Amino acid sequence: MLLHLSTWPEIEQYLSQSQGIIIPIGSTEQHGPTGLIGTDAICAEAIAQGVGEMTQALVAPTLGVGMALHHGAFPGTISLHPTTLILVIRDFITSLVRAGFQKFFFVNAHGGNVATLKAAFAETYCYLSDLRLPGADTVQCQVANWYMQRGVYTLAQEFYGDQEGSHATPSEVALTQYVYPDAIKTAPLAALGPRQWGIYGAADFRRRYPDGRMGSNPALATPDQGQRLYDVAVAELAKAYGEFLAAEPV
Amino acid sequence: MLLHLSTWPEIEQYLSQSQGIIIPIGSTEQHGPTGLIGTDAICAEAIAQGVGEMTQALVAPTLGVGMALHHGAFPGTISLHPTTLILVIRDFITSLVRAGFQKFFFVNAHGGNVATLKAAFAETYCYLSDLRLPGADTVQCQVANWYMQRGVYTLAQEFYGDQEGSHATPSEVALTQYVYPDAIKTAPLAALGPRQWGIYGAADFRRRYPDGRMGSNPALATPDQGQRLYDVAVAELAKAYGEFLAAEPV
Amino acid sequence: MLLHLSTWPEIEQYLSQSQGIIIPIGSTEQHGPTGLIGTDAICAEAIAQGVGEMTQALVAPTLGVGMALHHGAFPGTISLHPTTLILVIRDFITSLVRAGFQKFFFVNAHGGNVATLKAAFAETYCYLSDLRLPGADTVQCQVANWYMQRGVYTLAQEFYGDQEGSHATPSEVALTQYVYPDAIKTAPLAALGPRQWGIYGAADFRRRYPDGRMGSNPALATPDQGQRLYDVAVAELAKAYGEFLAAEPV
Amino acid sequence: MLLHLSTWPEIEQYLSQSQGIIIPIGSTEQHGPTGLIGTDAICAEAIAQGVGEMTQALVAPTLGVGMALHHGAFPGTISLHPTTLILVIRDFITSLVRAGFQKFFFVNAHGGNVATLKAAFAETYCYLSDLRLPGADTVQCQVANWYMQRGVYTLAQEFYGDQEGSHATPSEVALTQYVYPDAIKTAPLAALGPRQWGIYGAADFRRRYPDGRMGSNPALATPDQGQRLYDVAVAELAKAYGEFLAAEPV
Amino acid sequence: MLLHLSTWPEIEQYLSQSQGIIIPIGSTEQHGPTGLIGTDAICAEAIAQGVGEMTQALVAPTLGVGMALHHGAFPGTISLHPTTLILVIRDFITSLVRAGFQKFFFVNAHGGNVATLKAAFAETYCYLSDLRLPGADTVQCQVANWYMQRGVYTLAQEFYGDQEGSHATPSEVALTQYVYPDAIKTAPLAALGPRQWGIYGAADFRRRYPDGRMGSNPALATPDQGQRLYDVAVAELAKAYGEFLAAEPV
Amino acid sequence: MLLHLSTWPEIEQYLSQSQGIIIPIGSTEQHGPTGLIGTDAICAEAIAQGVGEMTQALVAPTLGVGMALHHGAFPGTISLHPTTLILVIRDFITSLVRAGFQKFFFVNAHGGNVATLKAAFAETYCYLSDLRLPGADTVQCQVANWYMQRGVYTLAQEFYGDQEGSHATPSEVALTQYVYPDAIKTAPLAALGPRQWGIYGAADFRRRYPDGRMGSNPALATPDQGQRLYDVAVAELAKAYGEFLAAEPV
Repeated sequence: MLLHLSTWPEIEQYLSQSQGIIIPIGSTEQHGPTGLIGTDAICAEAIAQGVGEMTQALVAPTLGVGMALHHGAFPGTISLHPTTLILVIRDFITSLVRAGFQKFFFVNAHGGNVATLKAAFAETYCYLSDLRLPGADTVQCQVANWYMQRGVYTLAQEFYGDQEGSHATPSEVALTQYVYPDAIKTAPLAALGPRQWGIYGAADFRRRYPDGRMGSNPALATPDQGQRLYDVAVAELAKAYGEFLAAEPV
Repeated sequence: MLLHLSTWPEIEQYLSQSQGIIIPIGSTEQHGPTGLIGTDAICAEAIAQGVGEMTQALVAPTLGVGMALHHGAFPGTISLHPTTLILVIRDFITSLVRAGFQKFFFVNAHGGNVATLKAAFAETYCYLSDLRLPGADTVQCQVANWYMQRGVYTLAQEFYGDQEGSHATPSEVALTQYVYPDAIKTAPLAALGPRQWGIYGAADFRRRYPDGRMGSNPALATPDQGQRLYDVAVAELAKAYGEFLAAEPV
Repeated sequence: MLLHLSTWPEIEQYLSQSQGIIIPIGSTEQHGPTGLIGTDAICAEAIAQGVGEMTQALVAPTLGVGMALHHGAFPGTISLHPTTLILVIRDFITSLVRAGFQKFFFVNAHGGNVATLKAAFAETYCYLSDLRLPGADTVQCQVANWYMQRGVYTLAQEFYGDQEGSHATPSEVALTQYVYPDAIKTAPLAALGPRQWGIYGAADFRRRYPDGRMGSNPALATPDQGQRLYDVAVAELAKAYGEFLAAEPV
Repeated sequence: MLLHLSTWPEIEQYLSQSQGIIIPIGSTEQHGPTGLIGTDAICAEAIAQGVGEMTQALVAPTLGVGMALHHGAFPGTISLHPTTLILVIRDFITSLVRAGFQKFFFVNAHGGNVATLKAAFAETYCYLSDLRLPGADTVQCQVANWYMQRGVYTLAQEFYGDQEGSHATPSEVALTQYVYPDAIKTAPLAALGPRQWGIYGAADFRRRYPDGRMGSNPALATPDQGQRLYDVAVAELAKAYGEFLAAEPV
Repeated sequence: MLLHLSTWPEIEQYLSQSQGIIIPIGSTEQHGPTGLIGTDAICAEAIAQGVGEMTQALVAPTLGVGMALHHGAFPGTISLHPTTLILVIRDFITSLVRAGFQKFFFVNAHGGNVATLKAAFAETYCYLSDLRLPGADTVQCQVANWYMQRGVYTLAQEFYGDQEGSHATPSEVALTQYVYPDAIKTAPLAALGPRQWGIYGAADFRRRYPDGRMGSNPALATPDQGQRLYDVAVAELAKAYGEFLAAEPV
Repeated sequence: MLLHLSTWPEIEQYLSQSQGIIIPIGSTEQHGPTGLIGTDAICAEAIAQGVGEMTQALVAPTLGVGMALHHGAFPGTISLHPTTLILVIRDFITSLVRAGFQKFFFVNAHGGNVATLKAAFAETYCYLSDLRLPGADTVQCQVANWYMQRGVYTLAQEFYGDQEGSHATPSEVALTQYVYPDAIKTAPLAALGPRQWGIYGAADFRRRYPDGRMGSNPALATPDQGQRLYDVAVAELAKAYGEFLAAEPV
């Protein structure tokens, strides 16, 4: 059930049965020479909607622009400042708490969002409590990274081994190929240099990772792998969402 | 050409030919008993992508959550504070100016966004200039409301006359029916009371407009009308975008 | 009745009879080679005080500095950022709501303020509601632009036709001449170039409108015209204020 | 020379001779049963304009609303938050520095503004430097409280002795009587209770000082005293402004 | 009793007997060629803990970084913006008010903190009241500058006369020598130039005061003097704290 | 080498040899019935200073108040909002970058700080770059949690097994016992209930963890264990700091 395709009386009805909602959050950022700029938004949205179908849960509109300042030296990247994203998350959740929602399950597709999301949760719990909104003190937010689910991780290792890398990975590219088979891109990919780990500012990032990839070989991706990754991710996250709902506030 | 389905080298290539971009902005808010909560996001996105196809322009991801605080007393509404939306717009534009974009054409589907958008443009021009970004002083932003295009307005009058109203209008509902024919909702609609105009706070709004409509009869909407409205909107906005691009900075 | 010339017990007494207040808002910005930098503040204050006298309404101190970033490349302009002005308006209204005011009628003399004012109203309604101030949910704010009142517009057309222009207009200059007859300035005015409409950043504005005027010929202004414009503006806005007060919150 | 009654070319001309400007800052707050709510704005404006005439200096529009949160439990008080006022001062000064101003002399009439003003100066020096505005590193701001000038203090002691008090003082009331002789208010004044000093929150303030006065007897004020106070204040501040201008940045 | 060395049940117990707390606030900034960068933090912490011992009062952790933007051109200085420090103070006090604290006694060692602290108090009183926290309207904050206590001032004059100066003073250096006798620094000190008073931006400060001292001769300082200054400061501030506690909210 | 006990010329000298600095960050929050409120600040400071001694690195003053909103329902907790802490970190780092520092190594003792710290790093990299500070694009920040170092973790398992828990752990309590042997607290500890994991708002936290512990048995702690944990932590973090310094920006 998609919030965007529902009416307000339908939401009112939904709330009488569940106070949970799934919120996809991605990013709009470079994903190497062949990865789509919308990769993270696409993955988060597709998987979240899959989870919503499997669990009869409501799915909110996708937060398609996240915290990607470190990708800012590549054209096409759009990023919020962390302080802006915190306000967005705060406003987003607060709007829904006013209506009666209590359990917020963020399906996340971008590692760079996690810290800011968690900071935003802390900020928001306090804000809701200060507003004295009904139910404020039992609100729960959780972030679930699709790429870190056990089955997804196992599959990615099986498919790509150490060519999975950590940005513009073949697994996320495969998933977008499954979702948008007409938008599969190819380009010659340089050999990967020695492995590096650090992520600092935008200029530094581009110096370290000149074509935007971090140790990954997205040329290995296929739409079929994408489908298998999708299926596993949806199944595992549907289970996680169910457990999240079941865990009663004490 | 959709930013989300492009790679960064494709954007780099695009920038060598054009510095314009189309940004759909909608809202996530109640649209009466039968209108979709995503109505404005859906309309903005569909029309913007239509304009993009017609003009070969790049289309950014949709800003699906806007300034809808006054709809906040109906479940399902999600709104940013104006001060938050200003920061979002600022970050959004700044990211793109860093890459070389100069002309920002916002296709807007929600009247409640306009004031904040214009305030955000003023804030952003000054911010860009203070950052001394290359090209900062020639950046131009424009907001184009699809529902106010002459041809759209004429058609809405022809279709619905004074039952068009000003929120949850049959024309916007028709357009969503055209885009999502599987999500057409029906419900008994109360007769409209005496016409009112004011929009103040959220509680006041719900007192004035108990089911969320403002003087409109969305039961008149059909998908065919939606298609005709879409066609006119795209054609007129494509022309407007062309003129916007052609108007050289002095 | 001027707030600045009243005591707090007088305001307490006033509140027992009316919860309305008139707030003049202008700007401090260049108005071409002969227009006063305070033109908008002067017009807003004079007209607001006239309306106050005619309607026995309380008039707040003038907000003399508004949103004029686009005039920032001319010396003498002072502007708030939109985000600053929103906070000013929020604090201003909140102070008065704490005392019991409910209806805020802004007499505005500067087009560049309108978007930010409207954004500020939305921000403030939500803020007041969150503070749970008594009466928060029935507060109403309205902005009335003196230069857009029907009678004013008609008179300006009659006096100046297409030389009225859209900034540093003869009608606003005339009004300041009526208020400050000792401060009438003259200077040679360049012929107006081809008409332009856009307003973007400050540097762009000065390139487009080198002496600060936008298609106007303020040399046509006379103090007598100013008096007639003043009289019409006051009469029409007094009527508008009365209607605003009469419109009960539902 | 008043900024509001000048044109931008006149300011450009002024800047070729002086980079100093006088900025009156007052407050809009209760001043006891007989003091005008605009007392501080009136005093600051009148004295600043007097100083401007005596020194040929430019006088900016009055900041009529300051930091008066502690007076917020009396109707008619309008206050900015300190954080808002800091932004206002920052924007105000920055606008003028962009035009070439260097020396900012604030004529202040409200003790409650001083701390926030000084914090704002520190914030602004850093902001200007970060913007790399020309002349940023030689900008100087100074606040001069008219009521603390030696001659003013001496005269107030001579006129009122220990009935001067510290808020709604006879000296400031006298000055407003001199400026607005038609707005002299009378009311029975309760005997003053035991002296207190503390200023904390708004509710606390009203409990301590039930009619708004702090140890003062404004019934002693006369317009003639006001004129003498005005004359002394203007003379001493004109001297102070001259010294401020003469002190070259090193 | 130190908050940092207490458990929460001990604080709960303390609150049943007292609602007062002492908060040391210093700065991290250059103190001339021989003064420690932590001088103000060290002085504030040592004296506050002394006062705490003498009065059985709870002492909060030291705010070691304050408002020192004007010292920013010397390496080692760390400063918050005034707007940041206001938020820190607000959060700090609010946390403690939630627990039941009512009386906040700031022992301050840096003149540059005072304005921002006072602005923060005003901001915080309003914030607490808006949050409707229990006891919000009787909270009291006070700042006590150790270097301005009468006995301290007298002793400093006796020890150093006009070589006390106003930054990197021998009295504060002496106090740090008493607290950290192993960290006494020596260096050749240039003769002091003609006396200057102004403090503006960071670059200006370094031009005026090239080695960071303002008219002081810290070479006069000895640890013994430091001990005497410490003893006097603690005694006087303990008395002041007692009076602050005794002054009941009305 | 402690920044607080250094002079600015000593820092200038240090910068000619190293651009690295160690910043301890803790928290001021309840640590169960027997843990010190300052536990995290104490651990961070002690270990950071140990690392500083071992590596000849400069150690900044301790950030003793962090992000602990979830502990806010226990008296004694002091917390910054995440948005406040981001500004504090930004100001802190920016001050040091202006002086020439490049490598910021945060020794952290509180899990609740990590997300906000990482968000602050992203915010700060962008801010520094926008300010165009020299060296801005090569600044690197890293957070190292002492309790997650391999040797520390191993030792904690060896000492306490599954009674280590995740808040008010015996290992952190032991470390404070080693540092402050005179401040060892005892109290009867309730048996731990069934293990829980979630951390949401402050009221929820106290409901879940009534005495503040999260699955830990701090009664097992001894000062000797604390010393061994300290030694391991210092050794491992000294190594990590060395590697951080050695990793050249590319």
